[in-house]
Amino acid sequence: MLKVPGIPYGTGAVFESACVVGAGRVGKAMAARLGERIPTRTAGRDLDCGDADLVVLCVPDRAIQEAAKEIPVGPWIAHTSGAQQLEVLAPHELRFSLHPLQTFTLDRGPAQLDGAWAAVSGETAEALAAGSALAGLLGVKPFELDDEMRPLYHAAASFVSAFLVTLHDVAAELMEAAGAPPEALEPLMRRTIENGFQHTGPLVRDDWETVERHAEAIGARRPQLLSLYRALAETEASLLGARTP
Amino acid sequence: MLKVPGIPYGTGAVFESACVVGAGRVGKAMAARLGERIPTRTAGRDLDCGDADLVVLCVPDRAIQEAAKEIPVGPWIAHTSGAQQLEVLAPHELRFSLHPLQTFTLDRGPAQLDGAWAAVSGETAEALAAGSALAGLLGVKPFELDDEMRPLYHAAASFVSAFLVTLHDVAAELMEAAGAPPEALEPLMRRTIENGFQHTGPLVRDDWETVERHAEAIGARRPQLLSLYRALAETEASLLGARTP
Repeated sequence: MLKVPGIPYGTGAVFESACVVGAGRVGKAMAARLGERIPTRTAGRDLDCGDADLVVLCVPDRAIQEAAKEIPVGPWIAHTSGAQQLEVLAPHELRFSLHPLQTFTLDRGPAQLDGAWAAVSGETAEALAAGSALAGLLGVKPFELDDEMRPLYHAAASFVSAFLVTLHDVAAELMEAAGAPPEALEPLMRRTIENGFQHTGPLVRDDWETVERHAEAIGARRPQLLSLYRALAETEASLLGARTP
Repeated sequence: MLKVPGIPYGTGAVFESACVVGAGRVGKAMAARLGERIPTRTAGRDLDCGDADLVVLCVPDRAIQEAAKEIPVGPWIAHTSGAQQLEVLAPHELRFSLHPLQTFTLDRGPAQLDGAWAAVSGETAEALAAGSALAGLLGVKPFELDDEMRPLYHAAASFVSAFLVTLHDVAAELMEAAGAPPEALEPLMRRTIENGFQHTGPLVRDDWETVERHAEAIGARRPQLLSLYRALAETEASLLGARTP
């Protein structure tokens, strides 16, 4: 949790107006939520943020640096990237970053922010307090993240979002190859989460025979997935402290 | 879905009594559910199933074969393993297998079966109908699975249960290394599922620069996880049809 002194979580007192740049999935959700709380304008390629107190950049990573350079110095400015660091906001000094640890769609609206955590990075106590204030306005739970740790943090997020989809799609492909319905996977995934990520499967029982049966079946039908299967089995064995065969 | 003629899903008319062998997580849930519907006894190492119509083996994979040999031929017999084939039930001929595609704990009871699918294998129309009848008694949704496809099917299940836990634990380790709260991952995982497994992350944007930043960060702090990261990124790129760098 954010441990800085200053504006407590949820007050949102510092910002009286905001400007959200970018109307992608994150930008739309944030602009909608901010608009429920304070006067909020949106800006596109013109980057016209008027006299807003706070400018929130919700643009692709590679576009942040250029957008930051073109926006006049003055208001607080934030980016919402998970992997980018604060230096991309130069020449602004009133700056921070806030990355909601969530995946967004265009159709779910601001409720997507509810229950999400958000990584806040800032170089001063004021910047962290400003990030906390934005978190309060958005209704997300902030935690402080060292700016230099952003790439590692964002890699962690990849494992449970992008690569969760990877696992699902790989499993669905194998189900189809086996003549089984891929939709049968989803209740299993949900319960695995609900059960608190208890380790399960043959490796819990040190059952390498079953692991080899899996590997043989994958090798025969979808050999391109075999190295991923082995990498996952080895990591799982290592997490379990299991004996390797 | 089960396409065999015979006893339709849900009638459960063929079995008037059952015996569940094994009191592990699956055995307890199944015995509790069957006991709500028909007279059900449980058996342990003595394998004493009396005159039950149906014997359901909920024992570890490596114990199925021996248990099946010791149980007198006569009633229908089933195993509940995902990976094992029907031959392990020899010398019984009235046999099938039913594997609930779900993960179980000891404390959730029979409700754990609700909403789950189950893979049914059998060598005759009668065996498949018997499997469908057991599915009806258990309240799970059966689908027919070729016996020889069991290892491939079970490998698919591993990707979204055992390896879902692997991904979570790896991500939690990286979050801790970055000084971020691991509990922040769960809302992201749930929403990724709720959003229907839409692909997300840098590879969707063909952003290999961010992938390399991830890899560098992992290599510097947790080098033992780098090969898994690369295997996942390569598979995801392949699923997306993305250009490799």
